[in-house]
Amino acid sequence: MELNKYIRDIQDFPKQGIIFKDITPLLSNPEAVNKCMELFIDNLKNKKIDKVVGVESRGFFFGMLLANRLNAGFIPVRKPNKLPYETISSSYALEYGTDTLEMHIDAIQQGERILIHDDVLATGGTAKAVCELVEKLGGEIVQCNFLMELSFLNGRQKINQYDIYSPLVY
Amino acid sequence: MELNKYIRDIQDFPKQGIIFKDITPLLSNPEAVNKCMELFIDNLKNKKIDKVVGVESRGFFFGMLLANRLNAGFIPVRKPNKLPYETISSSYALEYGTDTLEMHIDAIQQGERILIHDDVLATGGTAKAVCELVEKLGGEIVQCNFLMELSFLNGRQKINQYDIYSPLVY
Repeated sequence: MELNKYIRDIQDFPKQGIIFKDITPLLSNPEAVNKCMELFIDNLKNKKIDKVVGVESRGFFFGMLLANRLNAGFIPVRKPNKLPYETISSSYALEYGTDTLEMHIDAIQQGERILIHDDVLATGGTAKAVCELVEKLGGEIVQCNFLMELSFLNGRQKINQYDIYSPLVY
Repeated sequence: MELNKYIRDIQDFPKQGIIFKDITPLLSNPEAVNKCMELFIDNLKNKKIDKVVGVESRGFFFGMLLANRLNAGFIPVRKPNKLPYETISSSYALEYGTDTLEMHIDAIQQGERILIHDDVLATGGTAKAVCELVEKLGGEIVQCNFLMELSFLNGRQKINQYDIYSPLVY
């Protein structure tokens, strides 16, 4: 199955000069979703996972499916002021300014084995911030996986101490 | 299994006087998630579903699981300017002002059988706007389901022409 054909290029979104990879055609096709799940699960090679961390908000799609398939808990990482309970936070640099992500302080117990999932690995800034949150709470990062990796942005370099997997690489 | 005990009350979130129902303890417990899925699926009584519409962003959690379990496509409904392709939109009244939701124009084909999912049925404004989007594109609404219903807010009245189901009612 050619997963590529379920990813739609959108010119100039969210701003001029960017070609955005739209995953909604893939989400609307259950066979394509199942194929991605098969690749994700095969790649984890039966590693035990206690919790899956999904990053707001496109990381929630496969993050939740992975948690359910692995019989693991699901933890949302969100933008500031979205999570209702006490949080820890981590900031990362954008082209201009910074952005912040939050996680509930009771989301992870010391030593739990964590899979981090997001839809895209781009510059790696988000992924690195999420890894920091997980480790602050004592979680052990088993893998960071992404539906796709934009390899020309070298995001891998920011998180190269971890196992990384993406079924789609551009 | 007492699902209630996985829902945490948060005082004064997102603003003074509101008791927010935090579903993150439920998401982090795979048995509780499976119990909810069992209730959702049982309640659909083998009705055929072509696509599941999940509402940004807490409706993505169970929306995606339901789509996968039902072998249906998943369609995200999002806040303005988040979806990259051409969209249709529907607005609804808030306490002060209005809010708008968007769906891709090619998300639903004429006559497709649709399950709408969100985490909470409160005043019903969001749910009604989503029903409008689905019907604008020619979808047939089979059921609107929610993880929980805040029945004292009478949201049901706004969408009472549809089948409605929530495993948790407050």
